[in-house]
Amino acid sequence: MTMIGVLGGGQLGRMLALAGYPLGLRFRFLDPAAEAPAEHLAERLIQDFRDSHHLDRFTAGLDVITYEFENVPVELARKLEQTLPVYPPPAALEASQDRLSEKTLFQRLGLPTAPFAPVQSRDELHSALDHLGFPAILKTRRFGYDGKGQHAIQAPADAETAWGELAGVPLLLEGFVPFERELSQLAVRGRDGATAFYPLVENHHEGGILRRSLAPAPGTNGTLQNLACEYGTRVLQALNYVGVLAIEFFCRGGELIANEMAPRVHNSGHWTIEGAQTSQFENHLRAVLGWPLGSTALVQPCAMFNLIGQLPDCQALLSLPDVHVHLYGKTPRPGRKLGHVTVRAANQRQLREKLQRVSGVGRRELK
Amino acid sequence: MTMIGVLGGGQLGRMLALAGYPLGLRFRFLDPAAEAPAEHLAERLIQDFRDSHHLDRFTAGLDVITYEFENVPVELARKLEQTLPVYPPPAALEASQDRLSEKTLFQRLGLPTAPFAPVQSRDELHSALDHLGFPAILKTRRFGYDGKGQHAIQAPADAETAWGELAGVPLLLEGFVPFERELSQLAVRGRDGATAFYPLVENHHEGGILRRSLAPAPGTNGTLQNLACEYGTRVLQALNYVGVLAIEFFCRGGELIANEMAPRVHNSGHWTIEGAQTSQFENHLRAVLGWPLGSTALVQPCAMFNLIGQLPDCQALLSLPDVHVHLYGKTPRPGRKLGHVTVRAANQRQLREKLQRVSGVGRRELK
Repeated sequence: MTMIGVLGGGQLGRMLALAGYPLGLRFRFLDPAAEAPAEHLAERLIQDFRDSHHLDRFTAGLDVITYEFENVPVELARKLEQTLPVYPPPAALEASQDRLSEKTLFQRLGLPTAPFAPVQSRDELHSALDHLGFPAILKTRRFGYDGKGQHAIQAPADAETAWGELAGVPLLLEGFVPFERELSQLAVRGRDGATAFYPLVENHHEGGILRRSLAPAPGTNGTLQNLACEYGTRVLQALNYVGVLAIEFFCRGGELIANEMAPRVHNSGHWTIEGAQTSQFENHLRAVLGWPLGSTALVQPCAMFNLIGQLPDCQALLSLPDVHVHLYGKTPRPGRKLGHVTVRAANQRQLREKLQRVSGVGRRELK
Repeated sequence: MTMIGVLGGGQLGRMLALAGYPLGLRFRFLDPAAEAPAEHLAERLIQDFRDSHHLDRFTAGLDVITYEFENVPVELARKLEQTLPVYPPPAALEASQDRLSEKTLFQRLGLPTAPFAPVQSRDELHSALDHLGFPAILKTRRFGYDGKGQHAIQAPADAETAWGELAGVPLLLEGFVPFERELSQLAVRGRDGATAFYPLVENHHEGGILRRSLAPAPGTNGTLQNLACEYGTRVLQALNYVGVLAIEFFCRGGELIANEMAPRVHNSGHWTIEGAQTSQFENHLRAVLGWPLGSTALVQPCAMFNLIGQLPDCQALLSLPDVHVHLYGKTPRPGRKLGHVTVRAANQRQLREKLQRVSGVGRRELK
């Protein structure tokens, strides 16, 4: 029985396990949290990621180790790698944990990015603002997610507030890039170097949190898709990547501006459970195991909504055809991702019609 | 958190749990076997079904009880029903456990059946053979599955062998019905009486074990489908049924001859995981919980193969697009169902092409 160790036991881990059981896999999760969405359906150890003393309990009998969130300590991944295969490679984890390394990598590989400058002091902030202009966004280089750890600077007067809020850790100033929409590219690379790409997805954020994804991204032509695959290929190859990788882009006309990447399965890929021939979760597992990748082709177009903070009337949603509810077993709390809903339809027109009915059911929660 | 108790922890239970986790459900299985496919992904109690002394451990905190195989003792289901909802209703379990009750029910509801007669003695066997003619099949009334507990009687000389093999328990003699193919109808009925029907499935057995199902059954017209739904409705209503019910038919021209039924999710419905808008597993859970039923509409046509006795080269299968492997975590043993494979395609022509490639990969195992 092949046994997968997963660092992190959140909803992404839960969905990895649900995709892996049909493949005959077993799972062990390591997560310090009191409540972990993966815990009721697999073995789970409660342990701090920085406690490297009792790792034997975690590693015993494992065939491969992966992770389901990107703030796993790189040292832990490197330590584990001494005895077991760890995928995606810790170098990818390292690059994605620091916005400066991430943007520098994109730049080195020829992916357009917003202009940026590292900021270590108030003086550096001011000189970066002189250079990049207004508006700009000051961000912590590490541990940002769902819009946390960033502050917009619309005008010189905002600079002090932003500095006051974020100073004390390494920062990055990003220039503002006007864009029409946000897209993401989910890519997967196997141990043998084979790659596959899901269709581009259009994402809608509110308050820095992903609310809604449309797959495939409406009105996307082959040229844009090819460009996204080309950029994806460069990143996958440069990192000798194994597993699913998500890259978020700003889209302006035919241009894709790389914003950030996540070295793991990604919220904007949840639609693949119903909408693609192989889900991102199954493909991530196949990749890290060295198995052949599954087809990333579309089955039917989908829209995905996150359920944030509170749950809608799920039974009302379930009464609509081809509406799929995914709950993570988490206690509701403002701003918390509690689940998602995927709506699938035979074509884009029918999808739009279904979405109107769905938003009628979950007016507040599904925006 | 809604908690489902399941009697039996086999592959059907495993797939119920995999369908139920996204709905936010939790599971507890009761199964006496040393190895239970559901055990690694949910709570599992090891207990004989006839030990009714320690049921509190099983029932504590449950919201509803269901079962995933039909040889659960009826007395146990009735005892549990005194404190908790048990679906499908124990009366359905009782009717399906005895081939005589089952066929009598079909007959009473106007569903055509093969001619049959109960057999308690050698004399009754001979008079039944005089009446029904040759060939005929002698079957145990109870605990038959996968072709076990039955013996064909081609000619008078076979009667003694059949009697010698099966005598000692209540028996049934069935007359032979010439037929063109075997079909099954998966139906579901909610607590509120709402019903839904999956498309008819064509089944291929070998040695009494289901090998392959095609969904929808090729070349089936609306008249035949309507007839199957009409028969299904009669059985569901007569039993005040709640949950998924499978009825197996012999098909001869435009006629459907009811063979047997299973008061549970069914092997010939496994294709619904990929091929229907809502899987049989999810719909069974929705039904027993009193939630709205999901659409049973086809997404894309599928073929399902059982993996029996030994596993094929699963990685080779996974290298083919839209081929889905489902393993049950069971130790290989001749005649044992270890998993299944579902092949999905956009249309029947593409499905036939894919099936040729699949049978090239799993020559021996996928017949």
